[in-house]
Amino acid sequence: MKKGRLFIVSGPSGVGKSTVLRALLEQRENARFSVSATTRPAREGEIDGVDYHFVAEETFRDGIARDEFLEYAEYVGHFYGTPKKFVEAALDAGQDIILDIEIQGAAQVEKRSPEAVSIFIGPPSWAELERRLTARGTNTPEDIQRRLARAKVEIQNASAYDYFVVNGSLAEAVRELDAIMTAEHCKPKDFLPLLADA
Amino acid sequence: MKKGRLFIVSGPSGVGKSTVLRALLEQRENARFSVSATTRPAREGEIDGVDYHFVAEETFRDGIARDEFLEYAEYVGHFYGTPKKFVEAALDAGQDIILDIEIQGAAQVEKRSPEAVSIFIGPPSWAELERRLTARGTNTPEDIQRRLARAKVEIQNASAYDYFVVNGSLAEAVRELDAIMTAEHCKPKDFLPLLADA
Repeated sequence: MKKGRLFIVSGPSGVGKSTVLRALLEQRENARFSVSATTRPAREGEIDGVDYHFVAEETFRDGIARDEFLEYAEYVGHFYGTPKKFVEAALDAGQDIILDIEIQGAAQVEKRSPEAVSIFIGPPSWAELERRLTARGTNTPEDIQRRLARAKVEIQNASAYDYFVVNGSLAEAVRELDAIMTAEHCKPKDFLPLLADA
Repeated sequence: MKKGRLFIVSGPSGVGKSTVLRALLEQRENARFSVSATTRPAREGEIDGVDYHFVAEETFRDGIARDEFLEYAEYVGHFYGTPKKFVEAALDAGQDIILDIEIQGAAQVEKRSPEAVSIFIGPPSWAELERRLTARGTNTPEDIQRRLARAKVEIQNASAYDYFVVNGSLAEAVRELDAIMTAEHCKPKDFLPLLADA
């Protein structure tokens, strides 16, 4: 069986990344999101192993010590991380894994998993990103300016990614992400058995 | 305007490369084949600048001396080559150029144009390649064995290509080539103006 590939996807707040990724997964049966481990308690309705792998803090700290995470971070008193073993098992089973992650986490994964493919989703323009952040209706003007400023910092890192997708229209962004995933499965090293057989 | 990309496509005799490329160009408006220069006389119905750029041998030799070809070769007394200037003009006009070329020519182009993207089209199996060569009905058994032997040498070079596409089904091969072309237009360097604007 052909191994799956690990795709890292980053993008600034308001760019529409979640919508794009949900639509992408609708049309790629063989791809799924990675499930993070966390030390925060499960909320009502959350299912262990589906929404998160819920683990005790001691277990998480042991995992860090044993280098069992592709990346991890502490956020308001709780740990969040991507467990290597679940990702590896899914890839071995031929599934593509999508890691929806911010730029610091992406850099950690790239270091531990150099064969991962990284994709940055950017806005068509700053004006459009501001418009989308405003249209949500839940952000204060200060909040919007803070997110815009952060987006401009994040995009400086975009050239370190393997691919850059502009989310101008949803359909076009999904088409490009889908093409990237297909193209990444056309690498000669995936066909070494055939080549060796020559 | 976004610059076009240069795609080098190679594959053994009988793999169905021409059929795949014709179908691919049907669905990618912005892509076209490179037109070679040659010193052989035009045959009836051939149009200068469409089928070939027909040039005098002296002109061709001058071009070689001035490094005006991405690649060239001599074949049964005539020169054939890919003129840089036509390729560059098309790329600057935003067109993708496909260079259908065997492995020695591909290596020459890669050296002169390192940003070119190379794709090797391989058969799903040796048995299937033999079947296709036989099905043509125009090859002698010795001819078929010679082509098969050459295919096995050529495929040893496939790992030097950026991509490997198996032509099992026509639709699937076209879909993969199309995805590769789309993905190659999603490189961060194509978006430097946007990134610099941040």
